[in-house]
Amino acid sequence: MACRISELVLDAADPERLAAFWSEVLGYVELGREDDGSIEIGPPDGGPQPTLVLSPSSAPRPGKLPLHIDVSATDRDQDAELERLLALGARPADVGQTGTESWHVLADPEGNEFCLLRTRIRPA
Amino acid sequence: MACRISELVLDAADPERLAAFWSEVLGYVELGREDDGSIEIGPPDGGPQPTLVLSPSSAPRPGKLPLHIDVSATDRDQDAELERLLALGARPADVGQTGTESWHVLADPEGNEFCLLRTRIRPA
Repeated sequence: MACRISELVLDAADPERLAAFWSEVLGYVELGREDDGSIEIGPPDGGPQPTLVLSPSSAPRPGKLPLHIDVSATDRDQDAELERLLALGARPADVGQTGTESWHVLADPEGNEFCLLRTRIRPA
Repeated sequence: MACRISELVLDAADPERLAAFWSEVLGYVELGREDDGSIEIGPPDGGPQPTLVLSPSSAPRPGKLPLHIDVSATDRDQDAELERLLALGARPADVGQTGTESWHVLADPEGNEFCLLRTRIRPA
């Protein structure tokens, strides 16, 4: 009776670089490449999380992303994960947040904003 | 050892309207509302698919979305799902595609592009 979110497609000036970054962030592996230079990464076990397609684009980034990804650590607390993400090349981003939020606003190596949420229990 | 994609956050001029549309598309239900007017929708069973947060924003849409969602039908073929999505208020969008692609480019009621993929078998 419905659709599922199967992929997220992110424009990238350098798909290789963003594929490497997001693979580390999400524990994803490369699933395939297209002739146009797109690289698809996804869960190594083919799980139900959406894959991520890094799609080559030379279009300039038009300011804050109107659609962004929030991530949550799966096996550690938010502080430890923040440290890991910064070491991977994420950097703090300012989108007008007050600094008192429970999440961290970061940007990937091409400046795409994403948030690291406080790990939370999801309804079963 | 990694993060999971827990939410996607989409700026919306009218969160109510987009929450209704995307709930129908994805078979999602409302999970909660924030004081700022954000509406979160997600799988009714709390499954592993990301939730979607419609976040109020008056910022103008800056052209083609640099991050977009691809969806796949879960229980019907692509043609039948296309018909359903158009009836829900999606409309065909032109992002420069040739028309020979295996997917359909659509826009949601606020003009956010998304694609309906051909249903495919994912690696197990």
